[in-house]
Amino acid sequence: MTDPQQLAEACAEAMFAKDYAAQHLGMTVEAVGPGTATVTMTIDERMINGHAICHGGLIFALADTAFAYACNAYNKVTVAQHCSVTFLAPAKLGDSLSAAAVERTLAGRSGIYDIRVTNQEGSLIAEFRGHSRTIQGALLPEEGQVE
Amino acid sequence: MTDPQQLAEACAEAMFAKDYAAQHLGMTVEAVGPGTATVTMTIDERMINGHAICHGGLIFALADTAFAYACNAYNKVTVAQHCSVTFLAPAKLGDSLSAAAVERTLAGRSGIYDIRVTNQEGSLIAEFRGHSRTIQGALLPEEGQVE
Amino acid sequence: MTDPQQLAEACAEAMFAKDYAAQHLGMTVEAVGPGTATVTMTIDERMINGHAICHGGLIFALADTAFAYACNAYNKVTVAQHCSVTFLAPAKLGDSLSAAAVERTLAGRSGIYDIRVTNQEGSLIAEFRGHSRTIQGALLPEEGQVE
Amino acid sequence: MTDPQQLAEACAEAMFAKDYAAQHLGMTVEAVGPGTATVTMTIDERMINGHAICHGGLIFALADTAFAYACNAYNKVTVAQHCSVTFLAPAKLGDSLSAAAVERTLAGRSGIYDIRVTNQEGSLIAEFRGHSRTIQGALLPEEGQVE
Repeated sequence: MTDPQQLAEACAEAMFAKDYAAQHLGMTVEAVGPGTATVTMTIDERMINGHAICHGGLIFALADTAFAYACNAYNKVTVAQHCSVTFLAPAKLGDSLSAAAVERTLAGRSGIYDIRVTNQEGSLIAEFRGHSRTIQGALLPEEGQVE
Repeated sequence: MTDPQQLAEACAEAMFAKDYAAQHLGMTVEAVGPGTATVTMTIDERMINGHAICHGGLIFALADTAFAYACNAYNKVTVAQHCSVTFLAPAKLGDSLSAAAVERTLAGRSGIYDIRVTNQEGSLIAEFRGHSRTIQGALLPEEGQVE
Repeated sequence: MTDPQQLAEACAEAMFAKDYAAQHLGMTVEAVGPGTATVTMTIDERMINGHAICHGGLIFALADTAFAYACNAYNKVTVAQHCSVTFLAPAKLGDSLSAAAVERTLAGRSGIYDIRVTNQEGSLIAEFRGHSRTIQGALLPEEGQVE
Repeated sequence: MTDPQQLAEACAEAMFAKDYAAQHLGMTVEAVGPGTATVTMTIDERMINGHAICHGGLIFALADTAFAYACNAYNKVTVAQHCSVTFLAPAKLGDSLSAAAVERTLAGRSGIYDIRVTNQEGSLIAEFRGHSRTIQGALLPEEGQVE
């Protein structure tokens, strides 16, 4: 598979099948490409914290998931090393959040990705920056490996 | 209530009663004090990501929860502004994680808290730094407010 | 002065006249606009550290200066609250560095700016993200204020 | 040289001899140990920015220098990968700043160091966290190497 877009989609499909965390939180991978991903999630009652707004950890989890699908789109296992997030406005029960990841730089095994989280009105909820590191392994079985 | 330790515990109790996110993820607030908190969580199947390890977003959520209980221990509603996390080792299915938050500085309405996440063997899983901002409101009903 | 571009240029001129740090380090404000700035600096011997490369603190200072001119372009005194930097490649003696700042978000008194530092070959040296806060005061004397 | 304290001091001496940036900014390495360092600097006129306070880049440079001496104390060349800084109060002309670095974690080639910058009154000016990476090479000539 040499088409980068097809490869990104195949990686996302393989990852999502085993991504029980993303599944359990009701996330949907709306789109993926080489170094990009958009993931959505609706805020339900189990995501509300003691201040009656969405738990920041779950907003982070959404952004981190978009980051993961963007940086794993090249069929090389890639993990998060360091992430930072700025919370700009609260997310509320029933909000539909969307996290859009873009690659800012990728050099060798290290990458930086920027993820913007917005709500259904387009208001900015959070800005996230993730630093990735490629490690050993591939996401897809190699072609012709099993016969 | 003027004893800082009692106040911290009352704030934590009031917050946790409505903290559906922490409850749903099986977190326990093990200890809380003025500017400190320890929160634990066991990694179960719904927390596993596409690389077969604990989703970084849920490790963040644990640390962020310890941060929240530490910075809300003064009965003033306080929210996260900016957080960063470094992932040092993977957490695995069945691991018991503990997040310990300490206050690094608190000046006026702005605070910095450091949270260390370790597993059942004491190995360091993640280092988290949170920046807090106190906003309007109290966590506990004022004494004598309701007749 | 109501033209945003003219206002940005006037703010930069007023700031630079008193910015002894930027002057002393040989920085030049190449361009400025509403929320944007480009600042350059050549690495000389007094910027070299014990590893025989440019001191990271001075690469940061260059990026931080571009950040300052970008976020002060609206004639409201604005300061840095929190910044992060990732060093991607070393800068060497004689390198001509350029830091380009763009505004990522500005809501009320809080802004986020991204600054990319490159060398004379266009290679990426550092990525910087700055969080700004607008405080009291203006950079320019108000029109008609002084008779 | 097997005594860790002696080794740290020898590394600092070797680094400082070539650290023209630290020298030029008038920094003094007050103390160093395995994973720790304290560096001081007095704010002079060439460090003042367009807001008439110390340029944040130079406060960063001081903290970054303490970080560098702390993480290079084991005679293995170690560089900064990622740093973040929070500015808590302005530093002014004539202030004597002190940056104290401690090692938060060191595992394999990756370390995290926390640096606190205070002024002559003990007031907190900035909090800095640095992520280090050990690369090839030693700071000191190997014993018996030259005969």
